[in-house]
Amino acid sequence: MNDDRQYLELAIEQARIGRREGGIPIGAVLVADGAVLGVGRNRRVQLGSAIRHGETDCLENVGRLPAATYRRSTLYTTLSPCQLCAGAVLLFGIPRVVIGENRTFEASEEHLRSQGVEVVVLDVDACVRMMSEFIAAEPALWHEDIGVEDD
Amino acid sequence: MNDDRQYLELAIEQARIGRREGGIPIGAVLVADGAVLGVGRNRRVQLGSAIRHGETDCLENVGRLPAATYRRSTLYTTLSPCQLCAGAVLLFGIPRVVIGENRTFEASEEHLRSQGVEVVVLDVDACVRMMSEFIAAEPALWHEDIGVEDD
Repeated sequence: MNDDRQYLELAIEQARIGRREGGIPIGAVLVADGAVLGVGRNRRVQLGSAIRHGETDCLENVGRLPAATYRRSTLYTTLSPCQLCAGAVLLFGIPRVVIGENRTFEASEEHLRSQGVEVVVLDVDACVRMMSEFIAAEPALWHEDIGVEDD
Repeated sequence: MNDDRQYLELAIEQARIGRREGGIPIGAVLVADGAVLGVGRNRRVQLGSAIRHGETDCLENVGRLPAATYRRSTLYTTLSPCQLCAGAVLLFGIPRVVIGENRTFEASEEHLRSQGVEVVVLDVDACVRMMSEFIAAEPALWHEDIGVEDD
């Protein structure tokens, strides 16, 4: 298993913890210079939060960083980033994003690439399965998280 | 003073509270159906936060909302949104953003407009002055907030 796949495993572990907490199963990990700087998971349910997505929770858990560190980092996420999380990548100049899957949701990859970010999609079955099962079980919660109106 | 200018005043008040707290003076307000849903301010310093910008702090303070409410709302902010905060606007389908000023920082207005968001810049002198004084006093803190490397 290569390094990207191993770091993604940590993000998957975060997503699974989130699901067991009753939350939305999306996890993320920030890595720089071969070290894990922090991990996070979507905590809309757990914290009653509108902005704690997997990636933003990870960046918040990592805490304040100098710009130079972000610019050497890779963000791993189980699910293709929404516009908010893509905006965080662009704001901080994170040059590389590794994504578990983009089959159940994709909203920002073209924009990230157009801004020079390297976007790698590993297309991991376990990630697709995890999100598919969640979306089938909790469609209203999922729609709330991505700002989609229910009928 | 019209409604937009009055709601912006609440955002300016938030920015000033933030500055008195030792923080970065950017404030925001979310309004829907003529009611203020919540206010916020940049709290990088106050909370040691990487993601609590004026707009995201406001959305977090407002809390979880159904998609339909965001789609009737206007976000007021003292400073033109960074990519993270623009991403939040796009994620939740907020259709209108009213901005105090974009002379000291501008990173997302074209992208917001290209996605159908109405962007109104009021160009308020008090906002320009507040940010200009802050940037002159705390350049390293400002650069950290927007992911810019110091020399």
